[in-house]
Amino acid sequence: MEYLTGVAKKETLEISELLAGDLAGQKVKVNGAVHTIRDMGTVAFVVLRKREGLLQGVYEEGTAGFDLKDLREADAVEIEGTLEKNEKAPNGIEIRMESLRILSEPEADMMPLAISKWKLNTSLDAKLNYRPIALRNVRERAKFKLQEGITRAFRDFLYEQGFTEIYTPKIGAKSAEGGANLFRLDYFHRPAVLQQSPQLYKQMMVGVFDRVFETAPVFRAEKHNTKRHLNEYTSLDFEMGYIDGFEDIMAMETGFLQYMMAMLAKDYAKELKILNITLPDVSKIPAVRFDEIKQKVSEKYGHKMRNPFDLEPEEEQLIGQYAQEEWGSDFVFVTHYPSKKRPFYAMDDPADTRYTLSFDLLYKGMEITTGGQRIHDYKALREKIAVRGMEEEGLEHYLDTFKHGMPPHGGLGIGLERLTMKLVGEDNVRETTLFPRDLSRLEP
Amino acid sequence: MEYLTGVAKKETLEISELLAGDLAGQKVKVNGAVHTIRDMGTVAFVVLRKREGLLQGVYEEGTAGFDLKDLREADAVEIEGTLEKNEKAPNGIEIRMESLRILSEPEADMMPLAISKWKLNTSLDAKLNYRPIALRNVRERAKFKLQEGITRAFRDFLYEQGFTEIYTPKIGAKSAEGGANLFRLDYFHRPAVLQQSPQLYKQMMVGVFDRVFETAPVFRAEKHNTKRHLNEYTSLDFEMGYIDGFEDIMAMETGFLQYMMAMLAKDYAKELKILNITLPDVSKIPAVRFDEIKQKVSEKYGHKMRNPFDLEPEEEQLIGQYAQEEWGSDFVFVTHYPSKKRPFYAMDDPADTRYTLSFDLLYKGMEITTGGQRIHDYKALREKIAVRGMEEEGLEHYLDTFKHGMPPHGGLGIGLERLTMKLVGEDNVRETTLFPRDLSRLEP
Repeated sequence: MEYLTGVAKKETLEISELLAGDLAGQKVKVNGAVHTIRDMGTVAFVVLRKREGLLQGVYEEGTAGFDLKDLREADAVEIEGTLEKNEKAPNGIEIRMESLRILSEPEADMMPLAISKWKLNTSLDAKLNYRPIALRNVRERAKFKLQEGITRAFRDFLYEQGFTEIYTPKIGAKSAEGGANLFRLDYFHRPAVLQQSPQLYKQMMVGVFDRVFETAPVFRAEKHNTKRHLNEYTSLDFEMGYIDGFEDIMAMETGFLQYMMAMLAKDYAKELKILNITLPDVSKIPAVRFDEIKQKVSEKYGHKMRNPFDLEPEEEQLIGQYAQEEWGSDFVFVTHYPSKKRPFYAMDDPADTRYTLSFDLLYKGMEITTGGQRIHDYKALREKIAVRGMEEEGLEHYLDTFKHGMPPHGGLGIGLERLTMKLVGEDNVRETTLFPRDLSRLEP
Repeated sequence: MEYLTGVAKKETLEISELLAGDLAGQKVKVNGAVHTIRDMGTVAFVVLRKREGLLQGVYEEGTAGFDLKDLREADAVEIEGTLEKNEKAPNGIEIRMESLRILSEPEADMMPLAISKWKLNTSLDAKLNYRPIALRNVRERAKFKLQEGITRAFRDFLYEQGFTEIYTPKIGAKSAEGGANLFRLDYFHRPAVLQQSPQLYKQMMVGVFDRVFETAPVFRAEKHNTKRHLNEYTSLDFEMGYIDGFEDIMAMETGFLQYMMAMLAKDYAKELKILNITLPDVSKIPAVRFDEIKQKVSEKYGHKMRNPFDLEPEEEQLIGQYAQEEWGSDFVFVTHYPSKKRPFYAMDDPADTRYTLSFDLLYKGMEITTGGQRIHDYKALREKIAVRGMEEEGLEHYLDTFKHGMPPHGGLGIGLERLTMKLVGEDNVRETTLFPRDLSRLEP
């Protein structure tokens, strides 16, 4: 029997540790993957890929106690050597290599993609087919480090605001909005579906914790093969009680975006630099009515309105352009969506019941959030269900929760991959999804 | 058009705000759900349930500008009144009520469960059937607040340790370990499965970020209807590269548990008190070989070993008892599990290939973690697959990742609901699952 007592300090150093101490001239040990080898004849540069970035090793025959030929790209190695400053090297440091230990070797001689190039110049399809390799490219992986920052900010901000994190089931007898876009499965000989949203669960949990959030996968069997649709994505959801109106939800989202930009600027500066991203100003976000902005966009750009109760993707783009040109904002809340376009639980605007107390948030002309106030009154909820011609069957537990009292509440869902995509300036949501699932892609 | 500028301070105060300021004698406004009303004749106590706890309101005819009869349990209300100190009231404060605004009213006159009792004395089945109501009980909801603390600690600790959070797909063509316990679905006319583990994905991502983690649902179509099995649960997974051995994984888990206990003690003291929990000592956790502990337990308790290559649940319990009695620890790592009992990717012990470089962590006699070192060599991996009589079909992307180089690595998965269950002293994992999914339960 032995005892484990926690994480012990390792001999091998990370890049931040090499930079933190005054270690120039000293012997250090590091590990990493051989990202690239540039053999210049008398000297060679061996660049290691580490989680914190790239680290240059310098190989000189004679000084190094090993043969350069023993090293190959994609080796996992441990090297020892003297740390030196070099302005031209990544992070301004390099290691004059003295000894080498190979930890693991690849089987293949060639990488399927030129991952050590600064930009991975290849098709999206090739990137996705070789996803675990493509992501070894420094710029590719930086996108997903930023994605981490977004969720992290979402959670940390909401903890501060008194929210509780919840875990709701993804397999259920019924889903939030029903309809055709459900994946169906056999659950021990009972029909079941994958949840398209944690909507009904997070609402029920408002009665328990007042404010709740979840960051989890959702599943949509939509047959759209577009640049903006995924069949499985990560939804950042929150729901909060005791609101005065749906403006409270928009204010909370604005607060989150402000918190997020501050966290990215502080803790993810490296990735922002790698991707050359300037963070947008979110000190104030314009909010405009659905019918009003449709009118404005139609007038300004001569766009013909086909349907007064719907927004086409093209119109969303124009709204984004309008917000940028008129209000200098990448973001714009579009409020009071038509009731017909919103699910049964959305609260209609008492001033005009053709519209709802709800909103979308557009970021550079793309919807990244849908949210709003929900119906909290049991009778009103049942009436809306009846008016819609829906069945109460399968909604018994949901309705029962309202029967036993629920505060006024509302919430939203943010598509993580879309938000990441717009932030890093990509135009296909698959670029910012680790392993996308679409009509044709089920692997890797 | 209007602007949203972030979260504005509300007039209504939370409990921590009432306690923080020197507000005694001052007029305050609060909201909450009416948890219980105790009418004593001349005076009545109206207890509000808020997210931070219970808050007592005092009703006196004459002082209060409303009729007590207007108030019902489960109303969502806003009240205004004078804050006063009262040692007997929750948190030592109460509000002498002056005015009332009802925000929302329940339809039902009675709650299906006596949620305002300190302990919810009812069957597990009743609790689960009325889950969104049952969780309004202060003790019930405290368990899930602690569950939040566990995941929060897991993530924060791993961020500190240089891990990157990832989001891997839950629908796939193939799953980590294959076998019979997979939920199957139709994915646009192609057969697909729900992932039983992010195993293959997190391993592939080690080649990108060196250290990764995920906190997400996993799905197991196991036909066990026991107190410890769920068909969907939350798995806290991590995987790390450049390890010297599987002891590094156990050390990292020990570090996490230490971090977690410290965070719970600091940020979740209220919930620990509500549930009367004393946190276990995790300053050192014993680790003992599988074959050795089986022998010890058999000798000490006269337990007859039926199978030298398997652990029965009863044996796990005895190991827990042994660790408590002999080493004074609630936790014990059991190492070197038999190769036959581990999946193909587990690394065999070169010293004795009948065993693996892997472990389970038992907490009070129940397995809450499985982990270990994985095979990182492409050839060795293919050999193991062949020896097992498995097909490489469906594993092409996984294998391709190893073909192009992978560092030595390992990782683990922690069952969140089980860890919560043991921490709060429950004996059925459904008690610490918001909405459990088992053989018979698909709702709510």
